[in-house]
Amino acid sequence: MIDELAILQQWLPILNIGSDVAVGPGDDCAVIDSSDTEWQWLQTVDQLVDEIHFNSSDTPPEVAGIKLLKRNISDIAAMGGTPKWALLTIGANNFSSEWILEFLKGVKTAADQYGISIIGGDISSLVFPGLVTTLALTGIVPRQQAVLRSGAKAGDRLWVTGKIGNSFNSRWHLDFIPRLKEGNFLRGRATAMLDISDGLLLDAARLAKMSNVDLVIDDANIPLRTGAILPNALSDGEDYELLFSAPATALRDWPVDFAPITAIGEVIQGSGNVRNRYGDIWKMRYGYEH
Amino acid sequence: MIDELAILQQWLPILNIGSDVAVGPGDDCAVIDSSDTEWQWLQTVDQLVDEIHFNSSDTPPEVAGIKLLKRNISDIAAMGGTPKWALLTIGANNFSSEWILEFLKGVKTAADQYGISIIGGDISSLVFPGLVTTLALTGIVPRQQAVLRSGAKAGDRLWVTGKIGNSFNSRWHLDFIPRLKEGNFLRGRATAMLDISDGLLLDAARLAKMSNVDLVIDDANIPLRTGAILPNALSDGEDYELLFSAPATALRDWPVDFAPITAIGEVIQGSGNVRNRYGDIWKMRYGYEH
Repeated sequence: MIDELAILQQWLPILNIGSDVAVGPGDDCAVIDSSDTEWQWLQTVDQLVDEIHFNSSDTPPEVAGIKLLKRNISDIAAMGGTPKWALLTIGANNFSSEWILEFLKGVKTAADQYGISIIGGDISSLVFPGLVTTLALTGIVPRQQAVLRSGAKAGDRLWVTGKIGNSFNSRWHLDFIPRLKEGNFLRGRATAMLDISDGLLLDAARLAKMSNVDLVIDDANIPLRTGAILPNALSDGEDYELLFSAPATALRDWPVDFAPITAIGEVIQGSGNVRNRYGDIWKMRYGYEH
Repeated sequence: MIDELAILQQWLPILNIGSDVAVGPGDDCAVIDSSDTEWQWLQTVDQLVDEIHFNSSDTPPEVAGIKLLKRNISDIAAMGGTPKWALLTIGANNFSSEWILEFLKGVKTAADQYGISIIGGDISSLVFPGLVTTLALTGIVPRQQAVLRSGAKAGDRLWVTGKIGNSFNSRWHLDFIPRLKEGNFLRGRATAMLDISDGLLLDAARLAKMSNVDLVIDDANIPLRTGAILPNALSDGEDYELLFSAPATALRDWPVDFAPITAIGEVIQGSGNVRNRYGDIWKMRYGYEH
């Protein structure tokens, strides 16, 4: 296994980031400060690798293509943005042209559904049997309104959309709906936001660290997906639900046709810890990285 | 081997491209029509795969990282643009963290040299031994001034920068200099342009088809790289030199400190053919696709 964290801890600090980059690596998307007077640009990239992020043996290629697009859309949603333009790569060996075409049809299906233009790409052979696909997605957000991970304030309430846990057995990790309209609605309302991809506790710790606060999560309030027990919700990952902080009064007009939201805790003064309802720090490393 | 061409011939026609995309798939970069009043955006993506685009057994990781960035910069150069922001992915198995860090240092070296900000990325494990890296690069170009493949006119002269052929044995495919300042200078002067990545003849045919003209190339005038004979120049690929059409008088002020340019032929009326100096169509499929 590659130790992504150790590599990035050495590499990210030495990067030179231009003054036209409002938010660099470390949030759900980067935010680019173009000369556009109305919009800032969001960029994110993700890989979908066979036997790592899905299994081609039991997943139809079209479903895999849809997942690749939705994973990236979820990152744009978590900034309060709108996805627009995508670049695609496929590296493949031992996958038929028919399989790849079905995969690409899935990409197109999701692109059409979410109003995204596929504007370029690259297909390469590999020397080993396998499949590595990537999608780089650009979106837009009204200037200065992107919802970052870093804005949570003591006194805010902590919320999640939808339900958490058991995303694999339930196939939610394939069938999930990126919370795009919810993310847009939360722009100007949420103080901090991210999408839960690596497990509630690990992603909550990221929000806590970036905001330099502590989070108190009452595990009795976590909305469990069917078939999930608490440890699933805390650490399964691939929920693609939004975790966000907001003043308690900011969400009274939450639209009834949106994914439901649940208050699961509070933001308190602190330094990046996630605590249970008794105030104890959850020290165990939950979640997984991939 | 994946038949990229056959797959794309089936897929590209069914894509829905938004009205905010000035140029979609098929040129060196896509051109995005944002609401920015001054600039349009260029986007391109490329893969660098071990044992396909380089060999990790004889290429230092830092050099490979530099190549990944330069390949994409060359695409921005071929549109007359300026590279700005990059997203990176690495999928790796059986490559050490040290190797990957050296690779990333190469990416940083080239990014710093060309003023590019690395704003995001993703690192994943693979289940098979190998390395698949991608870079998605965004650049800018003054509105309506991107140099496309489609503007060549009968009566234009055909030019190349630098020298052509033998890029592999000479290590030019690693050491090349993206023709960025030359590409910028050619904005407003060249009528059509691309960078030669798959061999002069194959790339010339692309320019001819997109412009709906024929090109007559006098092979006696092709500037050969040291060690190259004519077939190398016609089909080796990975030259990363600019091939462009322009009125004969448009380049009289070509700066002396730029890569030299050589007139290698003429643009005539036609329908996408490349002809030799006797007017015969080069029918053989030169170049390679990867």
